Amino acid sequence: MLTNLKINARRLWDSLMDTATFGGTEKGGLKRLTLTDEDKLVRDWFKTQCEAIGCTVSIDEVGNMFATRSGRDDSLPPIAMGSHLDTQPTGGKFDGILGVLAALEVMRTLHEQDYETNAPIEIVNWTNEEGSRFPPAMLASGVFAGVFPTAYAYEQVDRNGVTFLEELERIGYRGSMKAGDHKLSAMFELHIEQGPILEAERKMIGIVTGVQGMRWYEVNVHGQDAHTGATPMYLRKNALLGAARIVEAVDAIGQKHQPGVATVGLIENKPNSRNVVPGDVFLTVDMRHPDENALDAMEADFRAALETAIPALGLTYEEKKIWSSSAVKFAPELIDCVRSAAAKSNFGMRDMVSGAGHDAAYIARIAPTTMIFVPCEGGISHNEAEATSPEECAAGAQVLLDAVLAYDQTLAK
Amino acid sequence: MLTNLKINARRLWDSLMDTATFGGTEKGGLKRLTLTDEDKLVRDWFKTQCEAIGCTVSIDEVGNMFATRSGRDDSLPPIAMGSHLDTQPTGGKFDGILGVLAALEVMRTLHEQDYETNAPIEIVNWTNEEGSRFPPAMLASGVFAGVFPTAYAYEQVDRNGVTFLEELERIGYRGSMKAGDHKLSAMFELHIEQGPILEAERKMIGIVTGVQGMRWYEVNVHGQDAHTGATPMYLRKNALLGAARIVEAVDAIGQKHQPGVATVGLIENKPNSRNVVPGDVFLTVDMRHPDENALDAMEADFRAALETAIPALGLTYEEKKIWSSSAVKFAPELIDCVRSAAAKSNFGMRDMVSGAGHDAAYIARIAPTTMIFVPCEGGISHNEAEATSPEECAAGAQVLLDAVLAYDQTLAK
Repeated sequence: MLTNLKINARRLWDSLMDTATFGGTEKGGLKRLTLTDEDKLVRDWFKTQCEAIGCTVSIDEVGNMFATRSGRDDSLPPIAMGSHLDTQPTGGKFDGILGVLAALEVMRTLHEQDYETNAPIEIVNWTNEEGSRFPPAMLASGVFAGVFPTAYAYEQVDRNGVTFLEELERIGYRGSMKAGDHKLSAMFELHIEQGPILEAERKMIGIVTGVQGMRWYEVNVHGQDAHTGATPMYLRKNALLGAARIVEAVDAIGQKHQPGVATVGLIENKPNSRNVVPGDVFLTVDMRHPDENALDAMEADFRAALETAIPALGLTYEEKKIWSSSAVKFAPELIDCVRSAAAKSNFGMRDMVSGAGHDAAYIARIAPTTMIFVPCEGGISHNEAEATSPEECAAGAQVLLDAVLAYDQTLAK
Repeated sequence: MLTNLKINARRLWDSLMDTATFGGTEKGGLKRLTLTDEDKLVRDWFKTQCEAIGCTVSIDEVGNMFATRSGRDDSLPPIAMGSHLDTQPTGGKFDGILGVLAALEVMRTLHEQDYETNAPIEIVNWTNEEGSRFPPAMLASGVFAGVFPTAYAYEQVDRNGVTFLEELERIGYRGSMKAGDHKLSAMFELHIEQGPILEAERKMIGIVTGVQGMRWYEVNVHGQDAHTGATPMYLRKNALLGAARIVEAVDAIGQKHQPGVATVGLIENKPNSRNVVPGDVFLTVDMRHPDENALDAMEADFRAALETAIPALGLTYEEKKIWSSSAVKFAPELIDCVRSAAAKSNFGMRDMVSGAGHDAAYIARIAPTTMIFVPCEGGISHNEAEATSPEECAAGAQVLLDAVLAYDQTLAK
C-alpha cells in the first residue's frame, strides 16, 4: 500500500538553511524566542511558502498556524504534521524546525506530484513550544488540547514584564479561530532526538512510543543584603549559599533516581554585586522520569532538601510547582505506520521514550499521535552547536511522508 | 585650641534627603551607579552648592571633583574632606554620601561664620568608589594616588561593554587636571561603619586606625549546554554545579579564617534557561583579612578548592586575581585630632579597623589620612534599608569639623 513518492532532500536542506537567517547567531545557532521580531519573520516566510503551493493558512487565538491541503473527502478531520519554529536563547537550527520544514517538504512533494490524499493534510506550527521566554513549555499546543485555558496563555509574563498576549498582538499573530475548534484525524511530529542514543547505536530512526513525565518548580530564597567586608561570617544570611545547596541537592536527586534527571537551569542573584552578600535568589528546577511514582519520590526528596538546607542558614524560601506533564503513551496504529515507513526505506530503527517534552505529548490527549526521531550529533541540543546531517533530515522527512500516507490509506472509504 | 563652631544638623539632614531623589528607589534606597545620568545629577547639584558658598570647583581627568576654599596661606596644600556620591545597585542613602555632604556642611559652617583657616580647605567627591559598575573599587582615588595609570581607569568596561572613558565624557565630567597633580596636607573621610560594632557597643564615633587587606578574583567555569530532559546525569558537564561548589568552598574559607571574610557576590549563568543544563558560569570572589599572611592562606585554600572541585565534574575553569589592596595604617597625628574632637563633644568612641575598603585607603599612600565612623542600623549597608539617624550624621559632621580645624591649627606658621 506504500507509494513511491520521494521527498526532495536538497530542497528540505535549503529551507532549513534559508530560515536559519531569522535569528541566526554568530556561532551558527539560532536565537528565535517565541513572539519576537525574529519569530514573526519565520512565520511570515512559512505562510508565504504554504500559500504558494495552494494551502490555506489559518491562525488560532494563541498564534498556532495551520496550513491545510484538501483531500478527497474534506469532511474527514485533517492529518496533521508539524512541530514548532521558536528556539531557546542559544538554540540550534533543528529542534522543532525540522518537524515543520520536513512537513512543508512533504506537502511540496504531494503538490508537485499532484497526489490526492483521502483526508486533508495539514502542517502545524505550534506557538511557544520552548517556554524559555513565557513558561510553561508547549503552552499553545496545551491550549489547543484543552490543558490550559486561553486566558492562562495570554497572561503569562516574560522576565521583562511583557505578556504573551501583548507580544502575540504586536507581531500580528493573534488569530480569530478558537484554539482546538477543529478536530485532527492524527498528528505526526518529526523531531531530533536531543539525546545520544540513536547516534551511539548507529540507528537512523527512533520509533517514539511515549514521553516521560516532567515537573517544573520555582524557588525564591531570601536572606539579607550586606557589605562583604564589614559583615562577619557569623552574622550573614547569604541567599546564594542557600541556592548553591539547592543546586547540589537537585543534582544529587537526579543521580539517585536515574534514569530520571533533575536540573537547576536558571538562577538570578540579587543584587548581584561583587561586594554585597547576596540577599535574594530566584531559581528554577526541572525534574523528569518515565515513571510517575519515581517522580513523586523525586519531588519528596526535593522538598525535604529545601526544608533541611535553607532554614539552617538563617534563610527563608518559597517553593512552587508551576507545571507538570504526565508520562504519555502514543497511538499504536500510528506507531505501526512509522515502523512500516522506516522499514520500507531500510533505515535502522529502535523504539524509545522521549526524554524531552514535545507538543505531541499534549496533542496525544485529543487525537491519535506519535513522533519520529532522527539522530543529532553528540546528543547535543538546546545549543548553538546542535547538528543533524542533510541525510538524517531527509530520512526523517521520507519516513514522515510514508507514515502519513500509510495512515491516510487507512481512512479510505 | 578647639573652636566653638557648630554645624547645622538640620541643614545636613535636608541635603542628605534632597540628594536622595537622584537615583532614589521605591524601597527608600539609592541606585546611583557611577557615571550614569543619576550620578551626573548629583554632581551638578554638588557643584552648584559649593560655588554658591564661594568655593572653586575643579575636575580632574578621571572625574574626581574638588571644591576648594582659600585659607590664610594658599601656598599650603589643602586639607581635604570627602568621600563618594556613587552607590551600589541597591544601595542606601549614607554610604559615601554622608562623607561628602558632611564635608559640605563643614564648608557651609566655615563660610557662614566667616572662619579663616590656615590652609585651604577642600571637599572631594571621588569617582567610582563602589566598583560595582566598573571594577575595581576605589578606581579614581587609586589613579589620584598613583596606584593605577589613568589609561587603566579609562579602559574599564561594564557588563554592557561600555567603557569608563565613554561614560565619563558622556556625562561631561572628564576634567583637564591631571589626577594627583595637586598635593594634600591631609585627608579626612567620614563614613558609616557598615558593620554592627558601634551600634552593639552603643558608641557614637569610631576612631579608625586602618583598613583590612582585600583581594578580588574572577572565575569562569566551562561545561556543555545540553537538554535537561534528554541528557542523562552521567553525560552532563553542568557548569552551575561547579559554581555551586565554589560558592560553598568560598564560604567555608571565610568560616575557617575568621575574622577574615570570603564571599561570592556576583554570578552569571549561561544560557540561563529552565530546560538547558548550564554550560558556562562567571562569578566573582571577594576575600578580606586584617593580616596579609592570613590572606595568603585564604588564597591558597581558594585555589586548592578550584583544582579539586572543578575537574572532578568534567569542567574547566580560568581564575584571575583582578585586584588587591594591602592592609593600611592611618596617620597617628590625624587620629589624635579625631580623638580630641570626639572627646570635646563627649561622644562615646572606640578604636577600630575598617572591614570595608575606602578611598582613604589609597590616599593614605600619598598624604596623612584618617577616617571617622558613625553607626548604621543593624550594621546593614550596601542595602536600601541602610539607616543612620540625624543625630549620628550630625555627630560625625561635628567631629569632622573639629578634627579638620584642630589639624589646621597645627599648620599655623
